[in-house]
Amino acid sequence: MREVFVIGVNMTKFGKLPDRSMKSLAREAVDGALNDAGITKETLQGAAVGNAKWGIFGGQEEIRGQVVLRAMGIGGIPIINVENACASASTAFHVIWAMIAGGVYDVGLALGMEQHSPYDPIKVLESAIIGTDVEESLKVIERVQGDVTGSRAIFVDIYARAAKDHMAKYGTTQRQMAAVASKNHFHSTLNPYCQYRKPFTIEEVLQSREVIYPITLYMCTSYSDGAAAAILCSADYARKLGISKPVKILSSALRSGRDRKEDEEPIEKLAAYQAYEMAGLGPEDIDVAEVHDASAFAEIGLIEALGLCPEGEGGPFSEAGHTKLGGKKPVNVSGGLESKGHPIGATGLGQLAEIVWQLRGEAGERQVENARTGLTQNGGGMVYITGPLEEAAINVHILQRVEKL
Amino acid sequence: MREVFVIGVNMTKFGKLPDRSMKSLAREAVDGALNDAGITKETLQGAAVGNAKWGIFGGQEEIRGQVVLRAMGIGGIPIINVENACASASTAFHVIWAMIAGGVYDVGLALGMEQHSPYDPIKVLESAIIGTDVEESLKVIERVQGDVTGSRAIFVDIYARAAKDHMAKYGTTQRQMAAVASKNHFHSTLNPYCQYRKPFTIEEVLQSREVIYPITLYMCTSYSDGAAAAILCSADYARKLGISKPVKILSSALRSGRDRKEDEEPIEKLAAYQAYEMAGLGPEDIDVAEVHDASAFAEIGLIEALGLCPEGEGGPFSEAGHTKLGGKKPVNVSGGLESKGHPIGATGLGQLAEIVWQLRGEAGERQVENARTGLTQNGGGMVYITGPLEEAAINVHILQRVEKL
Repeated sequence: MREVFVIGVNMTKFGKLPDRSMKSLAREAVDGALNDAGITKETLQGAAVGNAKWGIFGGQEEIRGQVVLRAMGIGGIPIINVENACASASTAFHVIWAMIAGGVYDVGLALGMEQHSPYDPIKVLESAIIGTDVEESLKVIERVQGDVTGSRAIFVDIYARAAKDHMAKYGTTQRQMAAVASKNHFHSTLNPYCQYRKPFTIEEVLQSREVIYPITLYMCTSYSDGAAAAILCSADYARKLGISKPVKILSSALRSGRDRKEDEEPIEKLAAYQAYEMAGLGPEDIDVAEVHDASAFAEIGLIEALGLCPEGEGGPFSEAGHTKLGGKKPVNVSGGLESKGHPIGATGLGQLAEIVWQLRGEAGERQVENARTGLTQNGGGMVYITGPLEEAAINVHILQRVEKL
Repeated sequence: MREVFVIGVNMTKFGKLPDRSMKSLAREAVDGALNDAGITKETLQGAAVGNAKWGIFGGQEEIRGQVVLRAMGIGGIPIINVENACASASTAFHVIWAMIAGGVYDVGLALGMEQHSPYDPIKVLESAIIGTDVEESLKVIERVQGDVTGSRAIFVDIYARAAKDHMAKYGTTQRQMAAVASKNHFHSTLNPYCQYRKPFTIEEVLQSREVIYPITLYMCTSYSDGAAAAILCSADYARKLGISKPVKILSSALRSGRDRKEDEEPIEKLAAYQAYEMAGLGPEDIDVAEVHDASAFAEIGLIEALGLCPEGEGGPFSEAGHTKLGGKKPVNVSGGLESKGHPIGATGLGQLAEIVWQLRGEAGERQVENARTGLTQNGGGMVYITGPLEEAAINVHILQRVEKL
């Protein structure tokens, strides 16, 4: 397979953006990524477009990519519309990586986008269910709903159960989860792309409304609007363009959930192992990571699954400040899903944009010093809503700044 | 890029199947394709799953592939959910082709599926709109609707306008379109997978209810239920398995529509040129073709775009019987979308299954003698519903039986 480089990224500010259309968000993201790469739209040889919710919130499905790209004058090329719930954007990135690695394109666009404002609680509930097996979920939803408040509670319920298991097994505390949230909210004050930019102390996180114990409101992500895009190309193409700060994709690992047996590793770990193996390095080499903190607990579980800290020590590791900007393993310095926001079909490319900026030294106040190798982890959907946490799709990408093409 | 082979195919019978679930249709298609390939589900390294309508008809989106594959015990591997309206299944095939050609997988599954029974006219109308730019369509839909009967009329209107243009430009007749429909309905009597298996004379087609002049009911396809699947692998993998009748993918060309200028070739032609160039052969080498005859007129336009007959001569060429089983360029010997049926997200893989059977000499009563090279053309969606016909996505695949791996 050929080496693949990211030569341009961009994202819109994430947030509640009821005055923006899907087309306008997509255009901003794509124009910026093209500018960043220094290429014109006419040179693109293919595109993959990730979106999760336009069907429910705007009635558009099937040719979502063609609809937004045609509006900005991009067409004729192959356009592949992909879905993988909250991991749709990283799946688009994975598809374009594969197309270029395999020699199908030399240069391509990955786009993720979401617009579900104005907020409609019924649609939000429906929209949470479609990230699971709807038929199975409807059988148990009444029982689950008996235990919850709030419309996003299907997923919060799953995270809360996983959190309680982790607490029982490893002694993880609610305070440690609050420390994760507080850290990410602090990071958001350094990132103009964030939906929420207010710092919260650990106490404030603990005192915010309980959604489902041990998860409080400030430990949760939000439904956001936004778009993000990346331009990928082959080494030859990047060389021809004279790219000055090339970022290489060392690995692109996609795995899907299944009915996990007791003795099987969770899919989160399998995707991480695969990514490290493909990249030829290990967690000790990761300078900066963006992980799918749909809840603060998720980040604790994920830094363990990714080997960024030992199994069972995600709580104390986070509380000690090691994952904070300036710590030894900075995680979610962008603010993460908890404060940057979570425009479902765009989130994964938002993470990738952040890591590219970090590796190029362009992350401003939140720059991780000497960041050379970065990782993104983006998870989507649940194969079942009872039983152990097993996401429907997990993408892990490892990127590295290279000095010369 | 590596050579890629199709080593297993299967499809369910297409039709109105209100008693079948999406999971049961998908399982039948996948089990059959695995059996045909002589491999077990555990050996699959990745899957791409195409579907267009499950959101509207069953409320399931985002992780459609994981939902049906988990139900048959397939998981852990990468699963990529793709959409491209009526070309969703061939897009899934294209993605798996690219993954294997590029060395990402050695063996993978492409699955297409659709279940929209029981028939609900409101949902069918909504479902037709989402194959276009919904926002743009809603602006003109009232005007379009003023001109039509029947709920599938958005697309029939587009085909009728294109047909009338073709009649004016080349002297094509309504009778020639009826000849296409009559030919395809005759083919369906030889294919047990077809939804409709009743022969109609040219007169009967002409006398059936007019949907929009010149398109009559028996010239139209139907909303069907069904699933189809294919197993693809590398040459090494096929050799290891000792495949006895290898079918090689010579080309996989995907193109998307755009705002076509007067002097630009339609996307249907560009996809065809690309497929021939990639395959290193021309239309004269095609022994059998399955094309996207969502209406009888479409087949006339497509055999011209594909170069199977000269420009403007699709009508007389069809009326002369050249595209009939036994003719010099047999087209849609499966019965085509008009009589085999059109389970939107499965259609493209149904075409590919037919061509693989033809190339392996396993097509029974409808076998094209000495078929060695076959072509499928699958189109999906419309980038706009006014202006010239320009589909949102076109996939052309060229396959060839090889004697030895």
